[in-house]
Amino acid sequence: MPILTLHEIAQTVGAKLPADADPAMSIFGATTLEEAQTGQIAFYEHPKYLRALRMTKAAVVIVPPAFDEVLAPVVLRVSNPAAAFSAILDKLEPTVPQERESGIHPTAVVHPTARVDPTATIEPLAVVEEGVEIGPRSIVGAHALVGRHSRLGEDCHLHPHAILRDGCLLGSRVVIQSGAVIGSIGFGFAFVEGRHRRLGHRGCVQLDDDVEVGACTTIDRARFGRTWIQTGVKIDNLVQIAHNVVIGPHCLIVAQTGISGSARLGQYVTLAGQVGVVGHVEIGDQVIVAAKGGVSKDTAPRQQLMGTYGIPAKEARELVAHYRRLPKTVAKIKALEQELAELKVLVAKSLARG
Amino acid sequence: MPILTLHEIAQTVGAKLPADADPAMSIFGATTLEEAQTGQIAFYEHPKYLRALRMTKAAVVIVPPAFDEVLAPVVLRVSNPAAAFSAILDKLEPTVPQERESGIHPTAVVHPTARVDPTATIEPLAVVEEGVEIGPRSIVGAHALVGRHSRLGEDCHLHPHAILRDGCLLGSRVVIQSGAVIGSIGFGFAFVEGRHRRLGHRGCVQLDDDVEVGACTTIDRARFGRTWIQTGVKIDNLVQIAHNVVIGPHCLIVAQTGISGSARLGQYVTLAGQVGVVGHVEIGDQVIVAAKGGVSKDTAPRQQLMGTYGIPAKEARELVAHYRRLPKTVAKIKALEQELAELKVLVAKSLARG
Amino acid sequence: MPILTLHEIAQTVGAKLPADADPAMSIFGATTLEEAQTGQIAFYEHPKYLRALRMTKAAVVIVPPAFDEVLAPVVLRVSNPAAAFSAILDKLEPTVPQERESGIHPTAVVHPTARVDPTATIEPLAVVEEGVEIGPRSIVGAHALVGRHSRLGEDCHLHPHAILRDGCLLGSRVVIQSGAVIGSIGFGFAFVEGRHRRLGHRGCVQLDDDVEVGACTTIDRARFGRTWIQTGVKIDNLVQIAHNVVIGPHCLIVAQTGISGSARLGQYVTLAGQVGVVGHVEIGDQVIVAAKGGVSKDTAPRQQLMGTYGIPAKEARELVAHYRRLPKTVAKIKALEQELAELKVLVAKSLARG
Repeated sequence: MPILTLHEIAQTVGAKLPADADPAMSIFGATTLEEAQTGQIAFYEHPKYLRALRMTKAAVVIVPPAFDEVLAPVVLRVSNPAAAFSAILDKLEPTVPQERESGIHPTAVVHPTARVDPTATIEPLAVVEEGVEIGPRSIVGAHALVGRHSRLGEDCHLHPHAILRDGCLLGSRVVIQSGAVIGSIGFGFAFVEGRHRRLGHRGCVQLDDDVEVGACTTIDRARFGRTWIQTGVKIDNLVQIAHNVVIGPHCLIVAQTGISGSARLGQYVTLAGQVGVVGHVEIGDQVIVAAKGGVSKDTAPRQQLMGTYGIPAKEARELVAHYRRLPKTVAKIKALEQELAELKVLVAKSLARG
Repeated sequence: MPILTLHEIAQTVGAKLPADADPAMSIFGATTLEEAQTGQIAFYEHPKYLRALRMTKAAVVIVPPAFDEVLAPVVLRVSNPAAAFSAILDKLEPTVPQERESGIHPTAVVHPTARVDPTATIEPLAVVEEGVEIGPRSIVGAHALVGRHSRLGEDCHLHPHAILRDGCLLGSRVVIQSGAVIGSIGFGFAFVEGRHRRLGHRGCVQLDDDVEVGACTTIDRARFGRTWIQTGVKIDNLVQIAHNVVIGPHCLIVAQTGISGSARLGQYVTLAGQVGVVGHVEIGDQVIVAAKGGVSKDTAPRQQLMGTYGIPAKEARELVAHYRRLPKTVAKIKALEQELAELKVLVAKSLARG
Repeated sequence: MPILTLHEIAQTVGAKLPADADPAMSIFGATTLEEAQTGQIAFYEHPKYLRALRMTKAAVVIVPPAFDEVLAPVVLRVSNPAAAFSAILDKLEPTVPQERESGIHPTAVVHPTARVDPTATIEPLAVVEEGVEIGPRSIVGAHALVGRHSRLGEDCHLHPHAILRDGCLLGSRVVIQSGAVIGSIGFGFAFVEGRHRRLGHRGCVQLDDDVEVGACTTIDRARFGRTWIQTGVKIDNLVQIAHNVVIGPHCLIVAQTGISGSARLGQYVTLAGQVGVVGHVEIGDQVIVAAKGGVSKDTAPRQQLMGTYGIPAKEARELVAHYRRLPKTVAKIKALEQELAELKVLVAKSLARG
């Protein structure tokens, strides 16, 4: 676990140390403002994180030059906090550690027609089938499977027990965690004479550069063509992605979400946990769907949706407030009925008198 | 990938080609009206798919003799469209391709007491335990496990990493996809002196003919007797089926649905994605539960249910409309209160005058 | 499968047999009142199970001395029914059967630095990595993986295909079912210059004594420190537990529930199926969240919550009743508007007359 001193950090990002800071202080991790603990570093750039900044437990924060609020952590001012943080991240939290020796473990089963780059690693009891190509520095973990004619680019990492079925295409730096299944057969049947007859699924799954797939997530192959996860998409654990779905660049798909067949997401979409998306819909760029939300129709860009019926977040919050006031609302109606009845009596009396 | 000409298709189904159709046109896939793309064939039989028929991108559609609407695709009229489609499906989309050589891979671990049919295939690094029986032409994929005393019928296919625990019974043509776990130990405990004590689960899982189980789906063994999935049931990915559940013939269970212990489903039930069913309920034949729905009590046949509380679909849709009008409803009440107050003043005045 | 006679059962628990009971009757299973079938035994202690007791199909029930209701099953009275049941359970349903020979299967891949107790069992094709420690009588199932420097105590059982990643700590009697992934990398990214950059996850997962983890459940390692599942917690299938979550002793986490990063649960919490918990919240002791419920803020002990918005159960049930009466409520408002309009006319008439 790399550790940097505050002095080394200030040098790395080209910032001036505050006079009262201890240059020898040890920093052992880089993370978000919200997650940071004592001894760690975080960064701040956008005002929407101001509250998180004020409450952070980080020891050091990187902020823009103009930021002048007094804070508990050591404050380093730089012109581009995100880039500075990124440089620190590279030093403190290097990705995809290449700690294992390259080469093919003697217990792995590699088909003679497979082309494995000499810098790649095939761990114990992995299976690499016919016609597979594995690029430089890629790792196929213990018990992992690479199905026939699949291709991995550079620096990919199939964790132990990752399952990549036939004919799938991975770019570079793709990570597939344990128990994930890429290229399963989709849920497509024709109902013929009282039985569900399976339809063929001849397509593949394509995962572009820097895609990461969580543990026990399933991505079905396309019926024809490809199920396509584009650059930089991050998928959490236990997510279901059906056949022919297309997910645009840099989306975040949180745990236990399900996306039905042929749905299409734009870029920078966030689906929070346990979201459901029905088949054949289009979701625009930068849409955010809150946890447990449902999406059942096309959605314009930059919407925020909530709830099973995918209602715009502002309206949804208002509706929940109304919902929780229902007993009071009903009581009001009862009171109105009562008052109206009494008034009727008065009016009748008045009319009788008149 | 088999390809048929339009001429071959017309011959196969015994239909007359329209005069303006090109008999040499290539057709490369058979699928549903909704999923079909250029170059593919679909069929139409029931009026509820009329909208899908009018919007299909299929190149060819098979319809009943009396159907006379003008459509963009080439139209083939036959007396039984479903059977005709089925014949095409057999030619264009053959199921369970037997592309691998039969026999036991030298790296597989097969217990000497296991009886493996000579036409069956055991792929690399699979484990077949004590007392197992594997029928003709069945395939046990790479890294798959067949637990002690389990039995597979004919033409079953355990995909790579499919996990079948001890004592399970499979009919013929059963498919279990990668990462699925059949025969896990159910979630049954007795709360004794402040601790949850595990109860035994001595039963098994029985999967009848033509059952298919999706990737990373879990089916718990029975406490006693069997968890029983009957003929032709199709189960999607990441589904949870608890101990002693019984699912009747030809049900469809869509992804991420959970069915609690001892629930019983009739035949032709559809549970859409992310549905939850509580324990010990009975669901009648042909019930349909919409995505994200919940079922917490016995349900008569042919109901359509929606929402967490499993409300009949028609009522549920009405309630959602009322829900979304709540702000207007509340505004109406406010207006009524205002008008009533004003009227009271008038009445008081009138009475005072009288 | 052990079987006891009614005579043996009465002797084991020190109860007197009723005069009309057959001492030779065979009892083959011990379970809950609700699950029990003919030929099985259950126990009753708390009045909240009175209805289950009256409806049980058990052949024998163990009850407190003062219980004097007449029931269909044979009734055995003892001073501590739970302890008596526990004694029967030990005889009828012994846990973690050690049916396999101990030792390391020749096809398993065990790193020379791993320390495996001679009474432990390593099944075929399992992988045990560098620096691992495996305690007495623990079992590592076929195809299971124990990642580098992980430690298992006594009598642990990794079922076939259980996946334990690097540096995880297991107490004694821990059970991990097939397809579960312990120590996956959490879903933590910093958004830097238009891309999600992965943050390191250097922590581990700690599972204390008697924890059980269901099939295909995923538990992410901590960013720093540990994701911590405490004594006696039982986790069902397909559950997602994110980085740095802490779950207190004896909680029950039912299938398909998701718990987000850094959430903390007290002891004896029950999360029913498909529940979602957002990050960073605290849930007090003995809280119960109903199936499909959501928890989005801190929760005091002993609350019962229901619904997506985590509303107290009593209020939630009332709100659902109001929700389902919305059409009637709206009709009442319409009627009020009508009556008010009519009354206005009367008042106007009265005033005009006056």
